[in-house]
Amino acid sequence: MPRNHEHPLSEAMDRRLFLKRTAVAGAALGLMGRGLAQQQPTADQVVQGKNPKLVVLSSRPVVMESTLELLGSERITSKANLFVRNNIDLPGLNTTEPNVQPGWEVEITGLVDKPFKITVDELSKLPQTEVTTVLQCSGNGRSFFNPRPSGNPWTYGGVGQVTWRGVLLKTLLEAKGVKLDPKARFITMNASTQGGAQPYEKSYPISVMEHNSAMLALGMNGEPLPAVHGGPVRLVAAGTFGTANVKWITKVEFTEKESSGNEQVPRYRVPVLPGWNTPILPTQPGSRYNYTLDNSRSNWGANINSFILSPLPGSSVRGRLVEIRGVAWNDGLAPIESIEVSVDSGTTWRKAVIEGDHGKFGWYRWVAPRLLSPGEYEAMVRATDALGRTQPLNGNIWWNERGYEWNGVMRVKFTVT
Amino acid sequence: MPRNHEHPLSEAMDRRLFLKRTAVAGAALGLMGRGLAQQQPTADQVVQGKNPKLVVLSSRPVVMESTLELLGSERITSKANLFVRNNIDLPGLNTTEPNVQPGWEVEITGLVDKPFKITVDELSKLPQTEVTTVLQCSGNGRSFFNPRPSGNPWTYGGVGQVTWRGVLLKTLLEAKGVKLDPKARFITMNASTQGGAQPYEKSYPISVMEHNSAMLALGMNGEPLPAVHGGPVRLVAAGTFGTANVKWITKVEFTEKESSGNEQVPRYRVPVLPGWNTPILPTQPGSRYNYTLDNSRSNWGANINSFILSPLPGSSVRGRLVEIRGVAWNDGLAPIESIEVSVDSGTTWRKAVIEGDHGKFGWYRWVAPRLLSPGEYEAMVRATDALGRTQPLNGNIWWNERGYEWNGVMRVKFTVT
Repeated sequence: MPRNHEHPLSEAMDRRLFLKRTAVAGAALGLMGRGLAQQQPTADQVVQGKNPKLVVLSSRPVVMESTLELLGSERITSKANLFVRNNIDLPGLNTTEPNVQPGWEVEITGLVDKPFKITVDELSKLPQTEVTTVLQCSGNGRSFFNPRPSGNPWTYGGVGQVTWRGVLLKTLLEAKGVKLDPKARFITMNASTQGGAQPYEKSYPISVMEHNSAMLALGMNGEPLPAVHGGPVRLVAAGTFGTANVKWITKVEFTEKESSGNEQVPRYRVPVLPGWNTPILPTQPGSRYNYTLDNSRSNWGANINSFILSPLPGSSVRGRLVEIRGVAWNDGLAPIESIEVSVDSGTTWRKAVIEGDHGKFGWYRWVAPRLLSPGEYEAMVRATDALGRTQPLNGNIWWNERGYEWNGVMRVKFTVT
Repeated sequence: MPRNHEHPLSEAMDRRLFLKRTAVAGAALGLMGRGLAQQQPTADQVVQGKNPKLVVLSSRPVVMESTLELLGSERITSKANLFVRNNIDLPGLNTTEPNVQPGWEVEITGLVDKPFKITVDELSKLPQTEVTTVLQCSGNGRSFFNPRPSGNPWTYGGVGQVTWRGVLLKTLLEAKGVKLDPKARFITMNASTQGGAQPYEKSYPISVMEHNSAMLALGMNGEPLPAVHGGPVRLVAAGTFGTANVKWITKVEFTEKESSGNEQVPRYRVPVLPGWNTPILPTQPGSRYNYTLDNSRSNWGANINSFILSPLPGSSVRGRLVEIRGVAWNDGLAPIESIEVSVDSGTTWRKAVIEGDHGKFGWYRWVAPRLLSPGEYEAMVRATDALGRTQPLNGNIWWNERGYEWNGVMRVKFTVT
């Protein structure tokens, strides 16, 4: 493959972002120069345009999380407040500005009758679809596992709700008159690595074309896709964990088997009993697991989850009427049917009211009004979908060596005055 | 294979049960002779020793279900009250009496270093293990799917709790010094068909040896295994649906792949999205599905479920203190953490009290005391386990062409006087 196809980004980005990258690197070096090697630079120093309230977990590659307060402050998570989990250190892309590259090419190949390449410019002229999804790192909540698995210590902020705009893979194949071989069972994506990193290759089950509006996304929240979030083009499958929503897409390959690359196995997997009725196989906390394609599955569909966004943990609120508020989401395969709140340690649960519109893959905003006398409280929330999938009371039941897919019932302590 | 191995049963049974079988056939013919072709004979006429209150769904092969009242009347379901779902018409075995055959041979073969045969007599001299399990037909509840799938119209009675006694497969292999080939991923069982029926072959994932106490059972509820329930020897895997607990075992084969026989596919399967976080793939009610080993899974681990056994549907009870009672169970992979009852259409749920001891694979007896004024009520029950698996409010979400694995929230209407 010619270098200018494999790394179409590097030179253009070099020109465009030279000054910004230099500025960020300088800021980071400045901090280290002050002898604060363990202190991270602030989010806006690491990625231009990010809210400094985001918490930086790593600056190379960039990993930063949002906060419960920021998540509760807007209906759609703005690009300034959205978490970042990059696996590849691409300093040239550390900005929320767009990555304008009309000539960027995506190759569609593998088990199709006519492989082809398409540029971002051509993609932008095909029919566009919008979908609002909950984007979440599969490591979100990792800090709550005990013992703490290795990896970035996410709390609750590795999640956000964003609106994508792009071309459905289905639409693209139809527009090009390209047919899939019936043997195709996976979609395997390749990210541009700018030549400086290991190949980043991930597979989805091909069913995401039907169930998850899989698309080549060019836009986010009504703007061109920010560089740090995968611009100019990202593969988005609504309802799946962030890890499978590969950024800076160069190749989409239809394959019979899932990738056996490092990002597919052993990374980003959870133990399973093949064919059993359980989303993960519980393993002994602290134990090791020899991940294979057979005895584990990739972080694909997001498991059901719900957060309390107000009151904030440790806060004081005025009584007696307290509105407990938050969000809930799942993989979109079936609607969330009830979101229940308990303020008596789980003895009684009462349905919260689901507010306003939510897309199939967006989050459900809910409010649970309670009459509470002055005192200390702990609220718990639990979402259940129409399939009977809910959250474990103690998320540690899912302890896994790599700390993925935490969805334990959230508990928030607050004071009513 | 010599005839006396393949069909070790027929002659001995012929001698032993000649009179009983004749009597049953006579009773059945008698009813038909009275012009009641559509009326089934009673349970005790079809299977000697069964409670006539059981509901006969088919007499050849024998299919009969128990009732909520009978299930609530005893802690361990007696052989008289236990449902029967036979796939093979074996008139000689239609009795709850034991099937005494010390010379009956089971062949252990496939991916083992030393294949061997063992008789029931030899099995009875190895260390025995007892396990109490919920045995349930995977078609139990089929009648509640809408539109009604074809197959036996089970309501709630295709379930019971019994205590098995037998030799763990693990113990057996150890005792014989036999090692499994690491390639072995399934256990494939063969039932004796007495030469008169199609082979009945089923596979389990090999993990049932570790997680489900898979055993060659020789006894049930402290007695030799009744003939109609699989005597002299049945493969039992605690926590799995009845279909995989193959009766009249002649061969246990360790295999790399699951059987592709008719009983394994397309029968006894539910649609799945491979690798997704959902126990079944929801399909459009009334639609067809082309079952393959890839796009579906066998009825293996029982999904979580709970029944109200008192008050009975439509009954009147004295108030104000009403004790709502019932049972709940799952596949035993993790404990059931809460069993909740609602009497206000699901707006509030309150934890029931779990009573007494229950094994890992047995059912949990629960009681929810409520103060209820005279009037009409509808109680709902929902069990949730430590893995966050619960029941759908509307079980029809799992509608599948063959009507398996119903576990919708049970609703019982009753009157308080």
